[in-house]
Amino acid sequence: MSELSKATEEANAEALNRLVESDPVLEDVLPAREALPGMTDNMILASGPQMPWEDYFGGQREGIIGAALFEGLAEDRPEAEAKLASGEIVVDGAHAHGAVGSLAGIYSASMPVFVVRNKAFGNAGHCNFYEGTNPRRLNYGVYDEGVRDRLNFIHEMVAPVVREAIRRAGGIPLKSIMSRALHMGDELHSRNTAASLLFLRELVPHLLALSKSDPEGVDKTVEALTADHYFFLRLSMASAKCIADAAHGVEGSSVVTGMGLNCKEFAIRVSGLGDLNHWIRGDQANVEAKLFEGHTEDEITWMGGDSAIAETVGVGGFAQAAAFPLQRYQGDPEVMVKRNLTMYDVTVGENTDFRIPYLKYRGTPTGIEIHKVARTAIVPVIDMGIGGKDGGQIGAGIVKPPMNCFNKAIEEFNRAYG
Amino acid sequence: MSELSKATEEANAEALNRLVESDPVLEDVLPAREALPGMTDNMILASGPQMPWEDYFGGQREGIIGAALFEGLAEDRPEAEAKLASGEIVVDGAHAHGAVGSLAGIYSASMPVFVVRNKAFGNAGHCNFYEGTNPRRLNYGVYDEGVRDRLNFIHEMVAPVVREAIRRAGGIPLKSIMSRALHMGDELHSRNTAASLLFLRELVPHLLALSKSDPEGVDKTVEALTADHYFFLRLSMASAKCIADAAHGVEGSSVVTGMGLNCKEFAIRVSGLGDLNHWIRGDQANVEAKLFEGHTEDEITWMGGDSAIAETVGVGGFAQAAAFPLQRYQGDPEVMVKRNLTMYDVTVGENTDFRIPYLKYRGTPTGIEIHKVARTAIVPVIDMGIGGKDGGQIGAGIVKPPMNCFNKAIEEFNRAYG
Repeated sequence: MSELSKATEEANAEALNRLVESDPVLEDVLPAREALPGMTDNMILASGPQMPWEDYFGGQREGIIGAALFEGLAEDRPEAEAKLASGEIVVDGAHAHGAVGSLAGIYSASMPVFVVRNKAFGNAGHCNFYEGTNPRRLNYGVYDEGVRDRLNFIHEMVAPVVREAIRRAGGIPLKSIMSRALHMGDELHSRNTAASLLFLRELVPHLLALSKSDPEGVDKTVEALTADHYFFLRLSMASAKCIADAAHGVEGSSVVTGMGLNCKEFAIRVSGLGDLNHWIRGDQANVEAKLFEGHTEDEITWMGGDSAIAETVGVGGFAQAAAFPLQRYQGDPEVMVKRNLTMYDVTVGENTDFRIPYLKYRGTPTGIEIHKVARTAIVPVIDMGIGGKDGGQIGAGIVKPPMNCFNKAIEEFNRAYG
Repeated sequence: MSELSKATEEANAEALNRLVESDPVLEDVLPAREALPGMTDNMILASGPQMPWEDYFGGQREGIIGAALFEGLAEDRPEAEAKLASGEIVVDGAHAHGAVGSLAGIYSASMPVFVVRNKAFGNAGHCNFYEGTNPRRLNYGVYDEGVRDRLNFIHEMVAPVVREAIRRAGGIPLKSIMSRALHMGDELHSRNTAASLLFLRELVPHLLALSKSDPEGVDKTVEALTADHYFFLRLSMASAKCIADAAHGVEGSSVVTGMGLNCKEFAIRVSGLGDLNHWIRGDQANVEAKLFEGHTEDEITWMGGDSAIAETVGVGGFAQAAAFPLQRYQGDPEVMVKRNLTMYDVTVGENTDFRIPYLKYRGTPTGIEIHKVARTAIVPVIDMGIGGKDGGQIGAGIVKPPMNCFNKAIEEFNRAYG
């Protein structure tokens, strides 16, 4: 593997600059049908590279059917499957509509989504709301009355309060929250404890005002924001989406601008290769998981996941040394540090706003470069939740992309740039 | 130095048990005259072992005079000094009245104090309020109109709201906040960022209710709680005081139950030696400070400080490896880890509730033992703010007690227990 050309180096420097200079600000909460470009009332979005309906299986398929029922697009499961097969209900990838999906990543038209604007470049990223602490969730391939009720609770009780608070605030800058959270034990993918608290702190003055007219909604919202470690994940993901999209489309750049998986395959995007929806597909990812008590390895199943957008912009697995509390899932602190350091070998630079205290405030490794991955045989490390065959979250751990994604990307890069 | 006797080992195990089992709960905010045992209207409290008025000098003396003026005990400085000299205004150590003072540690009778009850042992610890982000503060030996206004603001605007919120909550358990904060980059002495946010989160439901009748007070309180890293320090200190006091008075124990300094000398308390106000005095402490920009070493001055009560109960300098963001003041992360590990050599055990993620959740070193300090020649590490000659905070760093405190304590221990 030879050195990169000067043109590629320059293009990669520009892609890195866009990743680093991006400035995500939470602007609004809107229904998916209003917020997401191209979203229609009969559409369900799922995470990972888009596929024909018949290719979805397991939890991700269940999640799509569940969303059709939740949205009232079908009365029952057979009707939902028939309409999905006929194309009366359309399935598409969330990424293709400016959004990213957590795990199975299921969106329907009425769902409220966070609108995060990249103030530096003008584009927006979106993500829907965390469903709460119950491991049975639509985004883990489960749909039943409990899931429906919890979705309705979030949509009807929490989302309107958050929306009004954001509007009153005139937007909430997210980059400063993310920067600070990295100094407080978060890596912004599998751990978002501090970020959720910092976000709450920004909302408090507005929640105080809103509680006059909606005391119950505000109380429940405070609870939902801090009930566990995950509320901010969706904001971290939406931020990462608008950051990554801004870095896409730099002519000649070999920097990765997207990583994600559906139930069948892992895929990456490369800045200089094709449009925002051009995915280079490989085998399924590999996983090293620690499972919750009572679960076994044979239950692990793939349901998809766009949350690797976090690692794409230099947080999550690329900031493990900022989040030693994740050691239960990621290994001993020394292992986390060593693993984090290897990510500098596959990236083009460091983020000047996202810094890791234990590494003497070194910036997080940022801008995965496809040739470096191939040359070093080090694949990006992704911190991720693990779904079970019967639905629900059964653990968390480290997910690694297949190397053939990067090899295929290099082939394509060589065809494009010679 | 020989091994400790079996009786001492057992007494120390009991002292450790009391340190670990203590359960601080914030119960109330009350004026010092109501909350502190023996506090009178003509009394000023200062940090460190109590001294005759004429022995106080520099910033600590200035703070005491300032408090007399603030309290209206004198019209002007000459009158204050005359009344202090005549005994019409009395000076005493905060520790002798169930309280701990930050740096110069100045209390007057009307000041609101936190009342923290040790639910496991029934005793209480107290601390007054953080004055805010301005480096010119009464507790750093400064008194002028700005200091007076900021004290009045805290006392009249913030303290009543916090008091009502605490009462509505029926008390706020602090140990769980402290435990979680140690997983979020705090060591609970020089850094309390996460703890302050976690404390705010506990108050929010009650602040929402209170904002109906006092919207401005609640808004200002939210601001004061999270304006910088220090609001929770006073709660950490009051907690540590009630924890340390509970461990005092175990017959035959050589565990340290208090450390503090006035402007003149450092002193320690030992569980099996004398009553709660029996201090074993030594030379002044030593300091390794990093100063704020624009300040120089020759400005460093001692004004006292009871905040080493944090290290006495196993946080602060004993949990540095939990707080890598303090590296600017404490040295590189590797240095912080090594320094933290040496504290296990001078303590009798580990705290099962206070744990350090980077050390694989090892409990913090807890229960300083005087013979171990002497034998290893390793003195406790104290994270502390640094005062300047002209008043105000000019930096932060590491303070180390003088060895002769521990040697004197061993002599006294030998006289008592043979």
